[in-house]
Amino acid sequence: MSPYPEGVRQRVEEALAEYFPAVDTYPEILYQSMRYSLFAGGKRFRPVLTVITAAVFGASPETVLPCACAIEYIHTYSLIHDDLPAIDNDDLRRGLPTNHKKFGEDIAIMAGDALFAEAFSLISRLQMASDQRKIVDVIREIAAASGPAGMVGGQVVDMASTGKPISLETLRFIHARKTGRLITAAAWCGAILAGATDDELETVTRYGKHLGLAFQITDDILDETGSVEELGKTPGQDQTLHKATYPALVGLEESKRLACDETTAAIAVANALGESAHALRGLAEFVIERTG
Amino acid sequence: MSPYPEGVRQRVEEALAEYFPAVDTYPEILYQSMRYSLFAGGKRFRPVLTVITAAVFGASPETVLPCACAIEYIHTYSLIHDDLPAIDNDDLRRGLPTNHKKFGEDIAIMAGDALFAEAFSLISRLQMASDQRKIVDVIREIAAASGPAGMVGGQVVDMASTGKPISLETLRFIHARKTGRLITAAAWCGAILAGATDDELETVTRYGKHLGLAFQITDDILDETGSVEELGKTPGQDQTLHKATYPALVGLEESKRLACDETTAAIAVANALGESAHALRGLAEFVIERTG
Repeated sequence: MSPYPEGVRQRVEEALAEYFPAVDTYPEILYQSMRYSLFAGGKRFRPVLTVITAAVFGASPETVLPCACAIEYIHTYSLIHDDLPAIDNDDLRRGLPTNHKKFGEDIAIMAGDALFAEAFSLISRLQMASDQRKIVDVIREIAAASGPAGMVGGQVVDMASTGKPISLETLRFIHARKTGRLITAAAWCGAILAGATDDELETVTRYGKHLGLAFQITDDILDETGSVEELGKTPGQDQTLHKATYPALVGLEESKRLACDETTAAIAVANALGESAHALRGLAEFVIERTG
Repeated sequence: MSPYPEGVRQRVEEALAEYFPAVDTYPEILYQSMRYSLFAGGKRFRPVLTVITAAVFGASPETVLPCACAIEYIHTYSLIHDDLPAIDNDDLRRGLPTNHKKFGEDIAIMAGDALFAEAFSLISRLQMASDQRKIVDVIREIAAASGPAGMVGGQVVDMASTGKPISLETLRFIHARKTGRLITAAAWCGAILAGATDDELETVTRYGKHLGLAFQITDDILDETGSVEELGKTPGQDQTLHKATYPALVGLEESKRLACDETTAAIAVANALGESAHALRGLAEFVIERTG
């Protein structure tokens, strides 16, 4: 199995700990709640992707870590809100009680909101760039990826589709926006901060789209085939909620084939970026190999 | 009574209509829900403040409207989330059913999230500045004003204080963060985009703090003395919820005195900015005169 870039993950973990206030200030419960979800583990897939994409274009982790961590803040906030009783009503996340189970629904809503604000605060305070315009560029990309034409839009279609028969086209729409868009943004931000050209940014975007779709299809597959230990949450939750998933729509085997297609496409695009893109190939391989 | 700057409000209204997508795209319900709250009326107090502060330093409305409208997006999102059943559980806002009453709790949470994302999208796409650094500056200011040390932090302390006896110090903390911080940011952003010096920014910040506190104390007073027509919501709601307010803590007369003190202080600070700051004096007078 392709190894996950653990060194990079470790560096992201350290940066998150460095940026997040070490001491909970008043009102403490808010910071505790934010911290609880931000440091609940996870692969740090998005910030890792930002860092390894930056490396393809010769930039060190240090030069992109504020932006990378901001994207993880946003991913974390979206999980807190998606788990809420009014939405997915999940009790367990990464093997722990969900944020609202631990802190109450009101605090969970506010912790999500606060993490979202802190994401833009982090970038605007700490992200460096050769040209300030690039900082505005990454903020624009991340805001677009998080908003109604991105993550939130995908989540709303997901909510509206739950329990209903939907087309493969709609499912692709959901996945492309709910998870794909922020994954693409993570790669794009790493590339632009590292000085990638417009052509290279376009290539990175194509890579991100394939990777994001592969990632989400394998997530759907794992929800069906994984154990509670592997998932950190109750497997089969998607089925119980009558969520639209690839296995539900096209079956397990066809889902695996589609995930494999997307991974192959991601690797082919990464190859166009040359030898330095080996880490992007490795990450795509890691994604597909999760499903066994 | 000092007239509210209706011409400026009208210009803000037009800009909001111009920036917000004219046609609801898929998923339509999300855009409908965002639009419902964004165009539910309101004084547009924060963006008006941004525009008139910019004018003090010689800048036209056009040069600050994206930033001004982004602040109104954030104010609107905060109202949607504050009204949620898990938080204030309000049914009525500006004379209309609250967002979750109209669209459901799940959509209301997402509409708030989407407006927050769109705020940063709007600034990063459309805000112009002589120096890109100023755009990063306003994003940093607005993110800080919205986050755990600003609006969200104030809301959390407000939630934790509801139904409990609290000190005047705590009430000041709540007001300074929950409403005061974003009002101060609105003035600060107008000033920096218009080219104010550091000293002028400091003066504008002091003005914003006094104005924000005067605004919130008069809001507390109006909740007690206003009619449903004046308020667009059920009066006495704060009392019913056992919310901490100035009248509840120090009585109506002392509240009016404190609001008057803050207004006087705001006007004194505005005077230091010279003749061009007449609109800032006028806005402060408008705030205090709301209470009759």
